[in-house]
Amino acid sequence: MKAFVSIIMGSTSDLPVMEKAAKFFNDMEIPFEMNALSAHRTPEEVEKFAKSAVENGLKVIIAGAGMAAHLPGVIASMTSIPVIGVPINATLDGMDALLAIVQMPPGIPVATVGINASLNAAILAAQMLGLSNAKIAQKVMNYKEGLKEKIVKANKELSSVKYQFKVN
Amino acid sequence: MKAFVSIIMGSTSDLPVMEKAAKFFNDMEIPFEMNALSAHRTPEEVEKFAKSAVENGLKVIIAGAGMAAHLPGVIASMTSIPVIGVPINATLDGMDALLAIVQMPPGIPVATVGINASLNAAILAAQMLGLSNAKIAQKVMNYKEGLKEKIVKANKELSSVKYQFKVN
Amino acid sequence: MKAFVSIIMGSTSDLPVMEKAAKFFNDMEIPFEMNALSAHRTPEEVEKFAKSAVENGLKVIIAGAGMAAHLPGVIASMTSIPVIGVPINATLDGMDALLAIVQMPPGIPVATVGINASLNAAILAAQMLGLSNAKIAQKVMNYKEGLKEKIVKANKELSSVKYQFKVN
Amino acid sequence: MKAFVSIIMGSTSDLPVMEKAAKFFNDMEIPFEMNALSAHRTPEEVEKFAKSAVENGLKVIIAGAGMAAHLPGVIASMTSIPVIGVPINATLDGMDALLAIVQMPPGIPVATVGINASLNAAILAAQMLGLSNAKIAQKVMNYKEGLKEKIVKANKELSSVKYQFKVN
Amino acid sequence: MKAFVSIIMGSTSDLPVMEKAAKFFNDMEIPFEMNALSAHRTPEEVEKFAKSAVENGLKVIIAGAGMAAHLPGVIASMTSIPVIGVPINATLDGMDALLAIVQMPPGIPVATVGINASLNAAILAAQMLGLSNAKIAQKVMNYKEGLKEKIVKANKELSSVKYQFKVN
Amino acid sequence: MKAFVSIIMGSTSDLPVMEKAAKFFNDMEIPFEMNALSAHRTPEEVEKFAKSAVENGLKVIIAGAGMAAHLPGVIASMTSIPVIGVPINATLDGMDALLAIVQMPPGIPVATVGINASLNAAILAAQMLGLSNAKIAQKVMNYKEGLKEKIVKANKELSSVKYQFKVN
Amino acid sequence: MKAFVSIIMGSTSDLPVMEKAAKFFNDMEIPFEMNALSAHRTPEEVEKFAKSAVENGLKVIIAGAGMAAHLPGVIASMTSIPVIGVPINATLDGMDALLAIVQMPPGIPVATVGINASLNAAILAAQMLGLSNAKIAQKVMNYKEGLKEKIVKANKELSSVKYQFKVN
Amino acid sequence: MKAFVSIIMGSTSDLPVMEKAAKFFNDMEIPFEMNALSAHRTPEEVEKFAKSAVENGLKVIIAGAGMAAHLPGVIASMTSIPVIGVPINATLDGMDALLAIVQMPPGIPVATVGINASLNAAILAAQMLGLSNAKIAQKVMNYKEGLKEKIVKANKELSSVKYQFKVN
Repeated sequence: MKAFVSIIMGSTSDLPVMEKAAKFFNDMEIPFEMNALSAHRTPEEVEKFAKSAVENGLKVIIAGAGMAAHLPGVIASMTSIPVIGVPINATLDGMDALLAIVQMPPGIPVATVGINASLNAAILAAQMLGLSNAKIAQKVMNYKEGLKEKIVKANKELSSVKYQFKVN
Repeated sequence: MKAFVSIIMGSTSDLPVMEKAAKFFNDMEIPFEMNALSAHRTPEEVEKFAKSAVENGLKVIIAGAGMAAHLPGVIASMTSIPVIGVPINATLDGMDALLAIVQMPPGIPVATVGINASLNAAILAAQMLGLSNAKIAQKVMNYKEGLKEKIVKANKELSSVKYQFKVN
Repeated sequence: MKAFVSIIMGSTSDLPVMEKAAKFFNDMEIPFEMNALSAHRTPEEVEKFAKSAVENGLKVIIAGAGMAAHLPGVIASMTSIPVIGVPINATLDGMDALLAIVQMPPGIPVATVGINASLNAAILAAQMLGLSNAKIAQKVMNYKEGLKEKIVKANKELSSVKYQFKVN
Repeated sequence: MKAFVSIIMGSTSDLPVMEKAAKFFNDMEIPFEMNALSAHRTPEEVEKFAKSAVENGLKVIIAGAGMAAHLPGVIASMTSIPVIGVPINATLDGMDALLAIVQMPPGIPVATVGINASLNAAILAAQMLGLSNAKIAQKVMNYKEGLKEKIVKANKELSSVKYQFKVN
Repeated sequence: MKAFVSIIMGSTSDLPVMEKAAKFFNDMEIPFEMNALSAHRTPEEVEKFAKSAVENGLKVIIAGAGMAAHLPGVIASMTSIPVIGVPINATLDGMDALLAIVQMPPGIPVATVGINASLNAAILAAQMLGLSNAKIAQKVMNYKEGLKEKIVKANKELSSVKYQFKVN
Repeated sequence: MKAFVSIIMGSTSDLPVMEKAAKFFNDMEIPFEMNALSAHRTPEEVEKFAKSAVENGLKVIIAGAGMAAHLPGVIASMTSIPVIGVPINATLDGMDALLAIVQMPPGIPVATVGINASLNAAILAAQMLGLSNAKIAQKVMNYKEGLKEKIVKANKELSSVKYQFKVN
Repeated sequence: MKAFVSIIMGSTSDLPVMEKAAKFFNDMEIPFEMNALSAHRTPEEVEKFAKSAVENGLKVIIAGAGMAAHLPGVIASMTSIPVIGVPINATLDGMDALLAIVQMPPGIPVATVGINASLNAAILAAQMLGLSNAKIAQKVMNYKEGLKEKIVKANKELSSVKYQFKVN
Repeated sequence: MKAFVSIIMGSTSDLPVMEKAAKFFNDMEIPFEMNALSAHRTPEEVEKFAKSAVENGLKVIIAGAGMAAHLPGVIASMTSIPVIGVPINATLDGMDALLAIVQMPPGIPVATVGINASLNAAILAAQMLGLSNAKIAQKVMNYKEGLKEKIVKANKELSSVKYQFKVN
């Protein structure tokens, strides 16, 4: 089994944020890997990883980083497969990480999701994989369909909240 | 009894913010309803709700949403009755929700209140209803009058704080 | 003829922003008035205006203000009809005015629209008037319908932009 | 004994922030008063207070407010004595209150101090009083002199922190 | 020829920002289409477009929007193919559009690029297409390789800037 | 004639912002001086100036500064008379200067006015002088009274704007 | 033993932030000192310290400060050795301190590190010392090399996280 | 002649910002070089440059970058000599570049100067060089002394501005 997606983070302190991506891939039965890499502490490892991503069979890379979050952009500069960036809220409510990831210069895009939104990063990766994998595409469609249940449940709970002048 | 106002939220996690609106309508004896709808998870339900709002007798819609808060604007695009938007503080102190609600393009206004300010949303709805309902108009006037009591009470408490050089 | 709506601004330097509201009411044939009032320079006039708004037959007030924009909130504190606030961009891209208008304390809502968005303020006022005036309600519906034409026109223009690999 | 300074706040929930000003005046033996007033809930009381401030012998007014903080500016528009504004952090880290107080339009200044900085407001008031009251001026000078003791104490504590390579 | 990518914008005033994406696809010989759609003005058209995207053979959608930018998120809620959002700077330096696009709720990601960065949106789309189209993948690699020439040119220009103490 | 107020700025590039203060004092016939001082370039001159301010008869100091605006705070730390700070917009819309002036630590207040608001600084200085100078107090009152004329003029201009449905 | 570096802070409440710098110097066996100084409370002490820094053998000064953080800039204006500024998060997430330190006017740079980043300040100081001290230069290189171990450890922890579809 | 300092930028569009640094070194007769490098477009060149900086005799590196400004941090991760970062205002008033440069993770500092402040970067570099080069140290001292002349000139200009009530 080869990984389709690699989830990258700079330290295990980012794991509580990033594990939602891992759980999504596991639930969806999409092979993935997780690696610790740092744009600043192990630049050579980042380079080695990014440059061999295609030949290793990776299709998408998800990179989470906080503060002056360079990791997603640095990886994106060294590979031609899509890189999804997850800004992690370590300081300044995550605004520093968001801007350091999304405001990439012309030529090197990073597909940025919301602050701490690793689940959305994983769904986005699955959508990309689904472009050439009908089974994954179907899973994404099923997952999106399932989102409605949250609303159904919410409506049930709301209808159980009683006020005299509330109309049901 | 038909609802004059509908309070919309995306999930029951928004209820602690939005219930101040419900309590206000209940106290004021203004018939209201509460619904869970999501611009992103149940777009068809949103459309059905918004497009039938007028014929269902609704006069005003209050929609609360956080983050990239699209719900109030999406509803506003599908009905001609006023839509009041409540930015909910889920991330970034609610600044993302405030901007995503208030900065609507020309043609589709959302009457935006402060971050988490569902009580003010309800009062504003009552003010709108009061334009054609003298009883509700009177209730709003009474309510506004009652606000002064908070100051009277504060003055009592302040006068009980004693300092040697404080003049009463 | 009595005005349904009053458009308030602090100086004629605000007129270029606020006149879109006036034009909308004129086009819609909704009687309106325009007044210059300042929360800080003529507080007594503001009070006189706000307290007699109901008996003068006004239904809605639109107040535009920039910087530490107190005018909409101060008027709202002295009347029970809805007040719509238009944050005017005089400094800081209008963020100071937006926050000074929208973040009202509990009890005194201001229906805030986007920065410089006086047209949306006027449409919102018409929506409120439409709750008890079927003719105005119909005009709002027609206006909203007309917004689609902008998209039709845009699609025509886009289809006239030719690229070799563009599919039409 | 007549008050030289009036400390104004909108509710007793602001007292924990504003009481540092009261304590300063008490310690300095400067007669002061405290009042609860709200620009939005009791506009008539605000007007009465501000317009009689001079004849009541007040020299300086300190007004604290949060959110869309209109109170200092509204008072300043109705009196010719200096008004000091204290932005209170109720939402958005106090940035909304800071901007709503400091960004006053030309003609109506509010002497703004830092967020929650009621102590500095009181010192500033004492500096103003000191312009025509030599005893208060002397107290301010003594107070400022006393600030250095905090540094002396800090240096003692720092010199007690031992590291092998620390030079003392 | 069927389009692989659809470029969506709300009005032709967005064309100067979005045309860099069109030019990229044209240069890369990737079939694309351009449509004007508005989340608020033509919600029904948006729904029809988004729901038929897959059966129409679209692989990726690029949506640009300014202000309270709902279009990318609304489309993303109605399709399972990846949606790339381009925040357009219409107000507030584009910060309102950025937050309204990137901060999507769990379940509905939008792949966000930088403010006005439609070229990066196009490159990102090509990277996604390249996952299942070797020819496009090769073009992306060639394009990225070509980016280095800008640096080569810059170095030439820098070496032509003469200072006495500059070492070449 | 001795100056009551000193207007301080770091360079003559600040004069276009600060000259409104000079003109106000001139119109009000309040003796003032203007000095160029820099917290960073001439710290010794700043110290000499601040420490001799009282004995030189100065009552109030107005200091304008941009960027990391230290001048008002540094002067305030060396004198016991009130210091008014004017944040000058040199970068970041003046937000850096505003925060660097207003957020002073406990013990050393700076009376901060709005960004570029040197006129308000001068009015505030006159209000402080008026506490012990009845003539200046009267001038301030007259000046404030005069502000209303701007509104009178605005109302005239607004009444000359004709629309068919405008009510006058 | 003479100190190479002086760590300055305004009060011992800053010690929890600044002690990481002290520990770094201690671990690296670089002689340092710690002093409490305040730009506002003890300006004369600051001047004495800064002006004698060179003759006392100091090579680098690290100054931490919060809010309207003037200390680093004021010291930098009085010495020719490099000054490193550490913005301390006391209010506004540290944004006020960051801007008040980094946005220095032309001529007086402060080498600014991240919010609360006293460890990075110490490393930067060691890098400067290393320019003329081969032993310290070597220590810095060793330290940087050691940073990779954090990644190695993280990778071990990540590989121990087991999911069924995770590839190792 | 070998360069002591290298000035790095990503494209010649950054030259107008960065040339102030070059001019300073030229005026000070400090040998320097200028290179175009991009963290994203030529990562291999960046690595080669950074890793050979020490053996090439470089003492300090100045790197300017805008938007998601990764260049200074990426270079700092690959060398042990000090790296000075200059945030360039390309978008968002330069706030994105400032945060992406200054908020570096623990272990990899970048000495950050103000937005567009390449002159300050050069002075800071000279201060670092001066630690082991008495001639450069002297030049820095002379330069700082010269800054006062700007104030002397400003005072002359201010004294030539005549007002009737201005005291000289």
